[in-house]
Amino acid sequence: MIATNPVDVLQALIRCPSVTPHEGGALTALQQLLEPLGFEVSRVMARDEGTPDIENLYARLGTDGPHLMFAGHTDVVPVGNEAAWSHPPFAAEISEGMLYGRGAVDMKGGIACFIAALARLVEEKGAPKGSVSLLITGDEEGPAINGTTKLLDWAASRGEKWDACLVGEPTNPDQLGDMIKIGRRGSISGTVTVHGVQGHAAYPHLADNPVRGAIKLAESLMNPPFDHGTDNFQPSNLEVTSIDVGNAATNVIPASAVFKFNIRFNDTWSAEILQAEILRRLDAAAADTTLRPGREPIGYDIVWSERPSHVFLTRNNALIASLSDAIEKVVGASPQLSTTGGTSDARFIKDYCPVVEFGLVGQTMHMVDERVAVEDLETLTRIYRTFIEQWFANAVA
Amino acid sequence: MIATNPVDVLQALIRCPSVTPHEGGALTALQQLLEPLGFEVSRVMARDEGTPDIENLYARLGTDGPHLMFAGHTDVVPVGNEAAWSHPPFAAEISEGMLYGRGAVDMKGGIACFIAALARLVEEKGAPKGSVSLLITGDEEGPAINGTTKLLDWAASRGEKWDACLVGEPTNPDQLGDMIKIGRRGSISGTVTVHGVQGHAAYPHLADNPVRGAIKLAESLMNPPFDHGTDNFQPSNLEVTSIDVGNAATNVIPASAVFKFNIRFNDTWSAEILQAEILRRLDAAAADTTLRPGREPIGYDIVWSERPSHVFLTRNNALIASLSDAIEKVVGASPQLSTTGGTSDARFIKDYCPVVEFGLVGQTMHMVDERVAVEDLETLTRIYRTFIEQWFANAVA
Repeated sequence: MIATNPVDVLQALIRCPSVTPHEGGALTALQQLLEPLGFEVSRVMARDEGTPDIENLYARLGTDGPHLMFAGHTDVVPVGNEAAWSHPPFAAEISEGMLYGRGAVDMKGGIACFIAALARLVEEKGAPKGSVSLLITGDEEGPAINGTTKLLDWAASRGEKWDACLVGEPTNPDQLGDMIKIGRRGSISGTVTVHGVQGHAAYPHLADNPVRGAIKLAESLMNPPFDHGTDNFQPSNLEVTSIDVGNAATNVIPASAVFKFNIRFNDTWSAEILQAEILRRLDAAAADTTLRPGREPIGYDIVWSERPSHVFLTRNNALIASLSDAIEKVVGASPQLSTTGGTSDARFIKDYCPVVEFGLVGQTMHMVDERVAVEDLETLTRIYRTFIEQWFANAVA
Repeated sequence: MIATNPVDVLQALIRCPSVTPHEGGALTALQQLLEPLGFEVSRVMARDEGTPDIENLYARLGTDGPHLMFAGHTDVVPVGNEAAWSHPPFAAEISEGMLYGRGAVDMKGGIACFIAALARLVEEKGAPKGSVSLLITGDEEGPAINGTTKLLDWAASRGEKWDACLVGEPTNPDQLGDMIKIGRRGSISGTVTVHGVQGHAAYPHLADNPVRGAIKLAESLMNPPFDHGTDNFQPSNLEVTSIDVGNAATNVIPASAVFKFNIRFNDTWSAEILQAEILRRLDAAAADTTLRPGREPIGYDIVWSERPSHVFLTRNNALIASLSDAIEKVVGASPQLSTTGGTSDARFIKDYCPVVEFGLVGQTMHMVDERVAVEDLETLTRIYRTFIEQWFANAVA
């Protein structure tokens, strides 16, 4: 079958229950859709200690440049309370113009539209002059260890090179065409342990309550703001996501207190410089004994969680213009170029080629009754097709 | 045997492993010591749902007034790391002038000295003109539900009335004779739950981080001080003893945060007025939206832990003078009259009669290698004997 109807493709994909880490038949379905279009399809199994094995897929149509990559994932988050769904989460039922199912917008819908767009192009005009690849992971919603990074490594080691990438994640807050992501904030997390001296609550002078220190150090990260935003980015924002002591005894001053924080940061900072600034703030607060006369500076240590997500901004005007123009042609309005929201796998791809993100409307992602307007699937297919033609025209010119 | 040697008595008591809630033979040993002195001994079992049964002891010598009560407990805290003890915790071994064992100072030692003091008095001069009672619980180190309060109820219901009470808990910080307790601060604990709105750390405007609110409410209780102390009491002091969120996901803003506090308060306050002041502070901090423009006031609720311990101060000059004079006669210096430290069972006894507290040096209580100087046992026995004689002389006069 030449899959020119995105609704058919999406229904086929939703009916594969590919909750991370399970392939669920979704990659097999993709393979069966891509091979008739001329793609060479590779199924790539990735393994790492302590994580489930994950199957990924890489497919290429064409052998020459220019080379456009479409990136996404077929894995989906769990259905949550299945009884609360108005339509079964893997049935892909259509009701009153909406197609229901887990992954409808995040992001089997994006994949379906891209395949339909390409199928229409191949059917009507033949394959683009160059190459199109799909880099599809089954580990975006999970630990993301056996997913995009390993698949990029695998492809690059086979000599694959790309000129641009479109990630099909849902990017639109309200209406299809609202927003392209042209970069992402970075993200760093840390865990701070504040050391005190345990004691009896009736003898505080013999103890040193670490809760005071933890509050003081946490506040040093909460105020003042790290910056006020940049041309392309929101202000960096830090959230203290947990404070924990675990002391059940009301008459005991605890020995230590722990807090965790996460900061989403903009291009004012590199991850390394921001970590140094965080340490500077913590050290200054710890050393300030004005509120603790006669006491030692607050003792603390910090553990940074995993590797940081680096901030990035895509400055490839031809890529951005191809996508923005395609959206304007189809929906009649220019999209906002944004760097808001969480991290995405684009943070890995940007090390290989310029990357932009555009997909469906994200409102119901991860929720019960995740759903997409059937009309939006047709519109996104037309946008993607226009983008592909535009990008190749720009790239060859 | 007439037990005039406090070392013998204390060794017999330490060798009974009476870790709460176990009687361990300690009350039987007491009974065997008291009956030869002429005491009528009652063993009183106390029961309450959800707590272990506890055996207590009440013993009275004499039938007429004036009536002096000595109060204490034979239960002890667990030994902790037994391998770390330099002498077995229930062997009562003497080494280089120190008697080692769990309960040596808290407070089998105090009981031993009181019995030895009384035995000497009875042997040399006969029983005092009036009555002496021992009110001994096995539930001071435990939940204290089946201990002193129930035993006081039991005795009062049988018509027992007392004119004064000496509690034999360790009261001296450094040297025997340092300190009498003539009152105690009150104690109130509470648990505050701050409600926020859960969300993704990358979209803080869609969430409301309860950690901020918890820190703000906790700080409203930490500053300013509740008072600056009174003639007889230290300043009231509040400790935030725990903060807990339990959020393991670094990219999630949690839904709620909980903190616990304990305040030791002086006679500036009644428990009720202090609770009202705490609520006033929390409400004011919750309503202050200057740091949270456009947000609702912080939502919180509070649960008060158990019944509060009420503050009290003993103003019976004859009782205090009898004890203070006895200490000065034996050790050559006047003790400090103090209200510092934690709560004790004196807070229950003060509803029945004036109460003071004096015992051994508390430095090793609850620790590995709990121990008492053999010399201190003799000194405390002499102080207690002088006190008993002095008090009856004052009371009859």
